[in-house]
Amino acid sequence: MVDKNLVIERLKGVLAPEIGRNIVDLNMVRDIVVVDGNVVVKIALTVAHCPLAKTLQTDVENAVRKLGDVRSVKVDTTTMTRRELEELKLKLQAPSPSSSPRTSSPVGPGIERLGKRGVRSIIAIISGKGGVGKSFVTSVLASELRRRGYEVGVLDADLTGPSIAKVLGVAGKPFKGPDGSIVPVKTKTGIKVMSINLVLDDPSMPVIWRGPIVNSVIRQLYWDVNWGDLHYLLIDLPPGTSDAPLTVFQSLPLDGVIVVSSPQDLASMIVSKAVNMAKKMDAPILGLVENMSYLKCPSCGERVNLFGESKGEKLASSLELPFLGAIPLDPSIAQLSDEGRIEDYSNPIIVDIADGLRTRAAKRVEQLTHELPIAWSMDPAH
Amino acid sequence: MVDKNLVIERLKGVLAPEIGRNIVDLNMVRDIVVVDGNVVVKIALTVAHCPLAKTLQTDVENAVRKLGDVRSVKVDTTTMTRRELEELKLKLQAPSPSSSPRTSSPVGPGIERLGKRGVRSIIAIISGKGGVGKSFVTSVLASELRRRGYEVGVLDADLTGPSIAKVLGVAGKPFKGPDGSIVPVKTKTGIKVMSINLVLDDPSMPVIWRGPIVNSVIRQLYWDVNWGDLHYLLIDLPPGTSDAPLTVFQSLPLDGVIVVSSPQDLASMIVSKAVNMAKKMDAPILGLVENMSYLKCPSCGERVNLFGESKGEKLASSLELPFLGAIPLDPSIAQLSDEGRIEDYSNPIIVDIADGLRTRAAKRVEQLTHELPIAWSMDPAH
Repeated sequence: MVDKNLVIERLKGVLAPEIGRNIVDLNMVRDIVVVDGNVVVKIALTVAHCPLAKTLQTDVENAVRKLGDVRSVKVDTTTMTRRELEELKLKLQAPSPSSSPRTSSPVGPGIERLGKRGVRSIIAIISGKGGVGKSFVTSVLASELRRRGYEVGVLDADLTGPSIAKVLGVAGKPFKGPDGSIVPVKTKTGIKVMSINLVLDDPSMPVIWRGPIVNSVIRQLYWDVNWGDLHYLLIDLPPGTSDAPLTVFQSLPLDGVIVVSSPQDLASMIVSKAVNMAKKMDAPILGLVENMSYLKCPSCGERVNLFGESKGEKLASSLELPFLGAIPLDPSIAQLSDEGRIEDYSNPIIVDIADGLRTRAAKRVEQLTHELPIAWSMDPAH
Repeated sequence: MVDKNLVIERLKGVLAPEIGRNIVDLNMVRDIVVVDGNVVVKIALTVAHCPLAKTLQTDVENAVRKLGDVRSVKVDTTTMTRRELEELKLKLQAPSPSSSPRTSSPVGPGIERLGKRGVRSIIAIISGKGGVGKSFVTSVLASELRRRGYEVGVLDADLTGPSIAKVLGVAGKPFKGPDGSIVPVKTKTGIKVMSINLVLDDPSMPVIWRGPIVNSVIRQLYWDVNWGDLHYLLIDLPPGTSDAPLTVFQSLPLDGVIVVSSPQDLASMIVSKAVNMAKKMDAPILGLVENMSYLKCPSCGERVNLFGESKGEKLASSLELPFLGAIPLDPSIAQLSDEGRIEDYSNPIIVDIADGLRTRAAKRVEQLTHELPIAWSMDPAH
């Protein structure tokens, strides 16, 4: 028969979506009442009207239902006090053991690694090869994370071929805050975007800059922009392994790198270069996605291998990387990108990648809070 | 009725393929005999066993046949004497009025424009955007020009994402000549290739170089390589408008630029940046090709607009450039590229571009030789 302790055990499997740690450890479960198989759980949210409240309520409900013998589940919510929130924040903002030595150590001649600020995870999307869909993967992953209620930012590090503003449909100019910092432009769903194209008067004008300027501008787009508190900052890298990618690897405290490839042998060769660069720079690579794997003909439904047989899995394994999946070419992608509506696009591979990021963040938070006292009381006052 | 003078007039329309000027002015027509509508023409070739002899013979034959009233045409060949050849060479090697002021004038701080050497036309293939098919257009155009018997070289200026060696199927290492110059590697049809990947021990290793090194290596690939006498040197540029393209525009005496685009609005925006860069650098733009315009489904034959409706013509007109044509995506391209057999591929749009280059070169040679005395005798000794 269902009892409180069983419910608590189940709830340890539910992660707070904006934090990625289980809600029991986070002291978010405030009350559990079980009467004849009818379960009422009270959850304290970090902020009132949290956009993730509904996701969390559903997660809790599903978790409890899986116990069996449950006749009904009701999830009530309340909001954490300011003090509880401060305690939680302090715990989570402590530097992680892996990022802290990095923050202080210079990583190249004259280039110092910048600090983490209020960003939990910084993920770079790289390829080496142009035109394989880095901006597509970046913007669709940002959209997916945003749909889950995370605070998400996208930094377009491709200064000479910036695509991010266009595919995410932002055009307004970023303005300067009273403290001199630049405020990023928000998409309709609330993704914060910073791209050089938002600063140019005419987006068709080239930035004809040599490396040193490119490098300093990329650092500014990260450091001088008021990103605020973010769960994820995704960085869209330009092709190549020269100045811009080098600056990102050397200057920014990356938590992970996602590699994008396409099925051509040619692409594999160039993508391998980028992967080998990331390895040389000690950047943690999360895995490889193959884009434009094939086309399902909209007319006859036949599979067309536009760029040869899919070889993403083989490539990933030869580079000793996890294979994150193969995304087919879909003509609607180009259309949505051109219309600035890529946020409307969803893809199961990207959903999986977002899940992976969540699990990874959860593990990190668990490590962070491992030895801290846990405030959760087994038998809270009613 | 056909007579000698009519034949001469027709032959003025036949261009010497390796030179691009009409064979009458070049003193290559050595004898014409007309008997009862049977025409025999004797042509002096610049070199014995000239690979273009057959092309030229066919051109002459076709030109004469168009006169009508011709019962038969026979084209005999002989070879120019060393002295005749020297005279021809002197004429053609004189610096052109347009390239001569350039050769001496420095074009940027610390960057001097390099000289023309033995190369007749230097054509850069640019895009701004990655993955739209610059290397494809470069290598297919090189193959087309080579098929016509021209001496062709390809310089891969994309140091961080070099594709040229792979698609043209060359892998051997270039060696150093006795004078210290580097000898390019030749493809099976004789295209001379120089790419950073031919120098690397492992083609999957990245070149993690900042701008100044990239710039100096690009200049070396042009200047320290013994290209020999070339009709065409094609330069495959990397994406972007930063160091590498800037160095090519500033350092090399470009005769023309071909712009490659794809149907996405996104690509148009970034391609416009590259075009505006080329305009700022006063590079003569020959026109715009749209690549990956559509796919003809191999299964049902339906046209699929993979990246949206073709808009190359509109883009070219908005940028005030000639539109060179739209090339569809063909899965065989990826296969031939991966197998290093792109020389086997042919495309009517590329044929047109090669024709355009030939006409353009012919005009230039005509300007060069305009006021020189013409050795051709209207009535040569039999």
